[in-house]
Amino acid sequence: MFLIDCGEGTQLQLRKHKIKFSRIHHIFISHLHGDHFFGLPGLVSTFRLLGRKQDLHIYGPKGIKEAITLLLKLGDSWTNYNLYFHELTSTSSEMVYEDDKVTVETIPLSHRIYTNGFLFREKKALRNLDIQAVNAYGIDKSQLRNIKKGKDAQSSSGEVVDNTLLTFDPPKPKSYAFCSDTAFKEDMVPLIKDVDVLYHESTFLDSEEGLCQKTKHSTAKQAATIAKMANASHLILGHYSTRYKSLALFKQEAETIFDEVSLAEDGKVFEL
Amino acid sequence: MFLIDCGEGTQLQLRKHKIKFSRIHHIFISHLHGDHFFGLPGLVSTFRLLGRKQDLHIYGPKGIKEAITLLLKLGDSWTNYNLYFHELTSTSSEMVYEDDKVTVETIPLSHRIYTNGFLFREKKALRNLDIQAVNAYGIDKSQLRNIKKGKDAQSSSGEVVDNTLLTFDPPKPKSYAFCSDTAFKEDMVPLIKDVDVLYHESTFLDSEEGLCQKTKHSTAKQAATIAKMANASHLILGHYSTRYKSLALFKQEAETIFDEVSLAEDGKVFEL
Repeated sequence: MFLIDCGEGTQLQLRKHKIKFSRIHHIFISHLHGDHFFGLPGLVSTFRLLGRKQDLHIYGPKGIKEAITLLLKLGDSWTNYNLYFHELTSTSSEMVYEDDKVTVETIPLSHRIYTNGFLFREKKALRNLDIQAVNAYGIDKSQLRNIKKGKDAQSSSGEVVDNTLLTFDPPKPKSYAFCSDTAFKEDMVPLIKDVDVLYHESTFLDSEEGLCQKTKHSTAKQAATIAKMANASHLILGHYSTRYKSLALFKQEAETIFDEVSLAEDGKVFEL
Repeated sequence: MFLIDCGEGTQLQLRKHKIKFSRIHHIFISHLHGDHFFGLPGLVSTFRLLGRKQDLHIYGPKGIKEAITLLLKLGDSWTNYNLYFHELTSTSSEMVYEDDKVTVETIPLSHRIYTNGFLFREKKALRNLDIQAVNAYGIDKSQLRNIKKGKDAQSSSGEVVDNTLLTFDPPKPKSYAFCSDTAFKEDMVPLIKDVDVLYHESTFLDSEEGLCQKTKHSTAKQAATIAKMANASHLILGHYSTRYKSLALFKQEAETIFDEVSLAEDGKVFEL
């Protein structure tokens, strides 16, 4: 379970939506504005109060370590678990996390301060075994590992058996890109090409497009344009300015450019 | 309007309870543990987003300025209003605020880190004029200011008129002491003698009194003992450990020592 950004009150929302704190090992912070960051000191402290023993990894802009450690120092409240900071400074995309199932890469964004989005990508899974076929050909178990990796096999009678006769395609690896906060930034498109789900901020509607330059935010139309250019399967909008009376306006505007649009709302769950 | 302590989510609570942000000019922070402090960066930032122009004064332990300014710097989000820090280091009581109606003094507490409570005291008000009497004696308006201050007056016929014939007693000045977080600390009693309302933390019940030494917190019984020794008119308990199923237990325990006990709860309003 990954946590992306941590505004004030995040720990309350986690509790409200029954997210187990102990399942969070990696927190990715896009940038150091309060609405993306000011909940982190409290969450780090609460982990301590809960008696956490597991390591916690925090990925975010340079300065995040100084800020969190200063607040812990002032409260004389050091963690009783290992806290690792991975400070980011690169303005080009880099892989910041990898395990056996997934990679996380940064997506450099264009905001008032140094900001990264994050691209979560499942690795290609091993091929699924067709157990009936494996038995029928009398394949020895010692070969199964290689067969899952896509290699051909040898039957009990010594014949070469083509891998496609023994396996099914695994599920297509899924991907998710989180892009907030940012002005319209066309050069993120190659990084997120063919992504399954793109979350892209849409602070404004097209009628306020003039505000984007100064504030470094995007309109719903711009978010949809990025989704279309990247050939995303689905677009989730969020980070709406409070000036608008209805969120439906964001969806309507984006749908003039791109078909598959959803609105992020507090507590909403999306399944890939 | 004064704000005392500012844990994570305070700005949400202020909004929920319809407290006007613009009426807050002075914030008093007892100590730099997260549950008393981690809402402050967000509140300071929100004041900026609301276009605040008025000065804001923050009173709290040394280090509070470095922490808040670092967070603002990292977000490149300086305030557009004047922000004044009044850093506290003294271990004896001192007056930290005074205007024409009220004074605020620190109450040194005993906690794991440097901590102050705060005593809010109304100044003695001017005497209330008896307008009918003033007219009956034909008192010239130029004397009213001095009469309110308690001085005798001269009637239109030149006679001295005793002040008590022209004025009523003003309301008794009210006082409020906020004492959290702290272990049982008898030497605060002279500072808060005869206070109208004492808020005193009661993290534990007497059955867990053994935990107070290490954690530097108090029991409901200890809070009530302080209230009794100080001859307070009313005691409000708060800062309860979540280990207890019922808050009523705190009230019951305190009432074995002191009669006038209330329980602090989220959003509750007390009138003096």
